[in-house]
Amino acid sequence: MRKSCEGAIVTPNELERYLEDRRVLVDEALEQHLPGVSEPPKEIHEAVRYSVFAGGKRLRPILVLAAAEAAGGQIEQALAAAAAVEMIHTYSLIHDDLPAMDDDDFRRGRPTCHKVYGEAMAILAGDALLTQAFILLSAEIAPVDKNPEARLRVIQEIAMAAGSKGMVGGQVVDMLHEDREIDLSTLQYLHAHKTGALIRGCLRMGGILASAGPEQLDALTGYGERIGLAFQIVDDILDLEGSLEALGKSAGSDLRKKKATFPALLGIEESRRWAHRLVAEAKQGLVIFGDRGIVLGAIADFVVMRRR
Amino acid sequence: MRKSCEGAIVTPNELERYLEDRRVLVDEALEQHLPGVSEPPKEIHEAVRYSVFAGGKRLRPILVLAAAEAAGGQIEQALAAAAAVEMIHTYSLIHDDLPAMDDDDFRRGRPTCHKVYGEAMAILAGDALLTQAFILLSAEIAPVDKNPEARLRVIQEIAMAAGSKGMVGGQVVDMLHEDREIDLSTLQYLHAHKTGALIRGCLRMGGILASAGPEQLDALTGYGERIGLAFQIVDDILDLEGSLEALGKSAGSDLRKKKATFPALLGIEESRRWAHRLVAEAKQGLVIFGDRGIVLGAIADFVVMRRR
Repeated sequence: MRKSCEGAIVTPNELERYLEDRRVLVDEALEQHLPGVSEPPKEIHEAVRYSVFAGGKRLRPILVLAAAEAAGGQIEQALAAAAAVEMIHTYSLIHDDLPAMDDDDFRRGRPTCHKVYGEAMAILAGDALLTQAFILLSAEIAPVDKNPEARLRVIQEIAMAAGSKGMVGGQVVDMLHEDREIDLSTLQYLHAHKTGALIRGCLRMGGILASAGPEQLDALTGYGERIGLAFQIVDDILDLEGSLEALGKSAGSDLRKKKATFPALLGIEESRRWAHRLVAEAKQGLVIFGDRGIVLGAIADFVVMRRR
Repeated sequence: MRKSCEGAIVTPNELERYLEDRRVLVDEALEQHLPGVSEPPKEIHEAVRYSVFAGGKRLRPILVLAAAEAAGGQIEQALAAAAAVEMIHTYSLIHDDLPAMDDDDFRRGRPTCHKVYGEAMAILAGDALLTQAFILLSAEIAPVDKNPEARLRVIQEIAMAAGSKGMVGGQVVDMLHEDREIDLSTLQYLHAHKTGALIRGCLRMGGILASAGPEQLDALTGYGERIGLAFQIVDDILDLEGSLEALGKSAGSDLRKKKATFPALLGIEESRRWAHRLVAEAKQGLVIFGDRGIVLGAIADFVVMRRR
């Protein structure tokens, strides 16, 4: 994939290959940093691995790697942090799917963790994954960067993104508004926290690991906030349009649960326009990275163009 | 409280005053490091604080502080880590009490988190608390110790203690053996992980924050392992003998659920002897701290003498 001084525009095929290559790297890191199924108690490690290796796109960890590269770093410096982010993302999916929460039976086309291993094990698998992320981030092996201050900043960044004023807070607001009317600003708040905070955190982590300066970090932050929201808007549209085959979860499940969505509040066309505007702004912010920002630009396009 | 060069033996009254003083310090640190109930989304911070400030003994955080002092450090260096440990302990109680897990309605004499705030909020309150511990441990304010390597080691220590090969793993084994026969070695494994790992971690964290050398750290580790097991044995005995008034949870609830306990396997008298033997060994290991080990010795006695 051309991403250096040639100024080349990335074709959809090139991006697809890039995402696939990076997905493989992320999966290798996850394989390396998760306890094996033979390690006791094996039941929990089996449940954890079932959910982690369920065929996700690995968009969040790939963003960590891409941010590190945009800021002039090496992906080796960011692979462990990338794996840690995917662990946290997967824990949030496992807990969100629980009967007491969204009560979803399918995820990525497979039965959810609690459907296979029971509710208690699913709660514990989520707990284990969240904790494993911090085991990984604090271990001597991760990240390759030798600066302990940067490692502490990365831990701080991801913990803040995942906590009660980030992802968990967004899930709380989501839950409190189930079956209730919701206005656009609350919906934005909800997604800025439930999905946006972690995506924003991915970009910032990658930047910190690559020793990004304040301006670069600001640019990555703004990019992350915008594509995070665009990602959610497109998710809402896809959910509305999708089918079980295409999405791997019950189509229109948000509507069935009377969940507020962007297309429900704005209509599909206006939602789509908004997502495209956010992506355009996200890409504008990448200029300070020069050609090194091309990959992040292509990923932003992918967010609005994707069909699942 | 005499704990310096006088070689004084600590009386039960002195220890009680010491534990109460330290409990107040830990509560102040928790008050300072948990988001306020007015911070959005306030519902989660209310649920979190309901469970954290439910009147616990704060034994684990006090052990962090006492270990730091035994190794020659200051408690100010360890207060944030102590608060973080209590957050992790409280998260584990909230999740363990859930209907899908132990299904307990009362904890410390009050309705459990899910009985007051619902299951979904209780799951999220646990998630938030676990995450908050790492926000705190990685923040610039904590610990006072300026050495970032020591801070990373503390995060590593607590994450390992709480994870799938520590506390979560113990809970998994507990759950898998519900309503099933269990032998003594499995019961020991279960408790060494479910409660022992975190208590051991408390001692080691305190030691690391006080820059303890390898021998001191080994001594603290051995002490932690022994009083952790003794604590659980005494817990089992108290549960068997207790009443709702004395314990704040339904008396004999372990037996009612047919949970394996030390008195069930060994008898009450043999269990008590074993607990006393463990405490004696734990105290012997403290000799390398000289008079600075007196407080830990008194706490070990407290573990077997306590009535609740």
